[in-house]
Amino acid sequence: MTAPTAAPALVALDWGTTSLRAYLLGADGVALDTRGSSAGIMKLPAGGFEEAFEETCGAWLDAHPPLPVLAAGMVGSAQGWAEAPYVETPADANALVAGIVEIKTARGVTVRIVPGVLERGILPNVMRGEETQIFGALASDASLNAEGGALIGLPGTHAKWAFVREGRIERFYTFMTGEVFSALRDHTILGRTMQSEAASDASAFERGVDTARDAGHPGVLATIFSTRTLGLTGQLTPGQQPDYLSGLLIGHELRGLSEVLARDQSSLAGRTLRLIGNDALCDRYRAALARFGCQDARTVAHATEQGLYRIAVQAGLVTAPARTA
Amino acid sequence: MTAPTAAPALVALDWGTTSLRAYLLGADGVALDTRGSSAGIMKLPAGGFEEAFEETCGAWLDAHPPLPVLAAGMVGSAQGWAEAPYVETPADANALVAGIVEIKTARGVTVRIVPGVLERGILPNVMRGEETQIFGALASDASLNAEGGALIGLPGTHAKWAFVREGRIERFYTFMTGEVFSALRDHTILGRTMQSEAASDASAFERGVDTARDAGHPGVLATIFSTRTLGLTGQLTPGQQPDYLSGLLIGHELRGLSEVLARDQSSLAGRTLRLIGNDALCDRYRAALARFGCQDARTVAHATEQGLYRIAVQAGLVTAPARTA
Repeated sequence: MTAPTAAPALVALDWGTTSLRAYLLGADGVALDTRGSSAGIMKLPAGGFEEAFEETCGAWLDAHPPLPVLAAGMVGSAQGWAEAPYVETPADANALVAGIVEIKTARGVTVRIVPGVLERGILPNVMRGEETQIFGALASDASLNAEGGALIGLPGTHAKWAFVREGRIERFYTFMTGEVFSALRDHTILGRTMQSEAASDASAFERGVDTARDAGHPGVLATIFSTRTLGLTGQLTPGQQPDYLSGLLIGHELRGLSEVLARDQSSLAGRTLRLIGNDALCDRYRAALARFGCQDARTVAHATEQGLYRIAVQAGLVTAPARTA
Repeated sequence: MTAPTAAPALVALDWGTTSLRAYLLGADGVALDTRGSSAGIMKLPAGGFEEAFEETCGAWLDAHPPLPVLAAGMVGSAQGWAEAPYVETPADANALVAGIVEIKTARGVTVRIVPGVLERGILPNVMRGEETQIFGALASDASLNAEGGALIGLPGTHAKWAFVREGRIERFYTFMTGEVFSALRDHTILGRTMQSEAASDASAFERGVDTARDAGHPGVLATIFSTRTLGLTGQLTPGQQPDYLSGLLIGHELRGLSEVLARDQSSLAGRTLRLIGNDALCDRYRAALARFGCQDARTVAHATEQGLYRIAVQAGLVTAPARTA
């Protein structure tokens, strides 16, 4: 006997720069259907949002007419469908709900967009999409609601590290690790001696992480040159250099994060934290975190759709089923 | 009455990746003539070295047949005219002379190439051309021969910082600051909100330096994102962003150098050091060094030709005139 399927209750959209991912969720937050599209906001022609939305979600809306729609990500940026101004840290789910912006489509559907989060300061930080993933993780992983607060890492082109406490995003950092890796590999001398390999080389990666951790005091602008000089001196093959550089950069990111933690008399060693992101990249970060003494860094699955679901419930767009204990 | 002109005694070549600069020097080391060419080693066809050399220096050799020729730079690399294997640190002028490699041209001239310097270790470092500039600076600036040793900075695509003592290059660091700046500006999201201005903005530059110095503990992978977010929050105009990013990167270079110095119970504050490089870039570094408390960082002029001259004298290729006191 299969469990009864919940009726569709929400269209949830993760709409970023390079792609659009749509989820048809039941009232219990479980995905009944998903659709992916390459209609990221940077790839659309002017006025292309509604068309891309119809193409991806039209069939669901035809079949289940009164469905609410909630979107998160760069779709709410100044270059998006409608700008949802940033909510400032410390930000909780209520603040995000209060900042939701509405669009009425030609079909008469209201599309609601979750705002991003801004932290002011000498180094201002912004996120769009990650705030929703973070609230998804908070809803599904009890360890993130520990009394002392929690740390969540979101590896990616622009990796984020967020400090959360009592249901609020208190502060966060952005490391351009992924984008810097690509720029160094494709547009500097470091790429000239590299060769891409099908399989990744875990030992070269760990060597990079350890070098950043132990000998990284001149900073990443200096250590990256060793990708080339370890090649010149016969200590790294061309095929090992990409993984070594990746390890160096992720190692420097964790070294920087360690410096931030040290100011609070804390460290990565022995810490529990959670990761959100694609599996291969989270595996890479977990391997690097282990070199910093952090052994408990599981990936929170389905954070995006769970975040959209939770915000929709908080906004009254969806009524969660009563729990039967 | 003009001073008598010394007879030509040396053809000195600074032959790098993107250009060739040739000096006709008198026995006293003073340049009698110079010629520039874009015939850098990466721009030459196979076997193009001799032709480029003849084109640049042929007229001098025709007029003064028995002239010795000494070259430094990437011309001695594996991709150069002939490979002059690296000399290892600590390296003095005698070690460079012993490592000189000779080429016989069709004309019957012997071209001698100065080797580069290699420092082994976890972060190996290499230089080609800078070692010659450093020996030029040592010959012309007495402050670099102080008992406790000296620090020389060579800003550029790959900036070098060398510790010299008793006429030896003891150790050095390479910071890929210039190349990273170009890669970030031209190939990441940071370039999208930037606008290049004819005049540089000193206050935006200093703001970048100060941010790296004071708030740079998450590391450069994190701080560079502020180039964008200070723009998003209206604190940096598009025209200020390139100078801010330049200040950030140079500030991180100096922060890294400070960490290196701190391990020797030393610092940049109050220190005397010397710079070698193009005037505009040295000015930029001097402004940044001042933010770190270093006020005595003059540029050593003519370091390249003085270095080639000094090594030629040391090698017995040129006899320096007796000093008349």
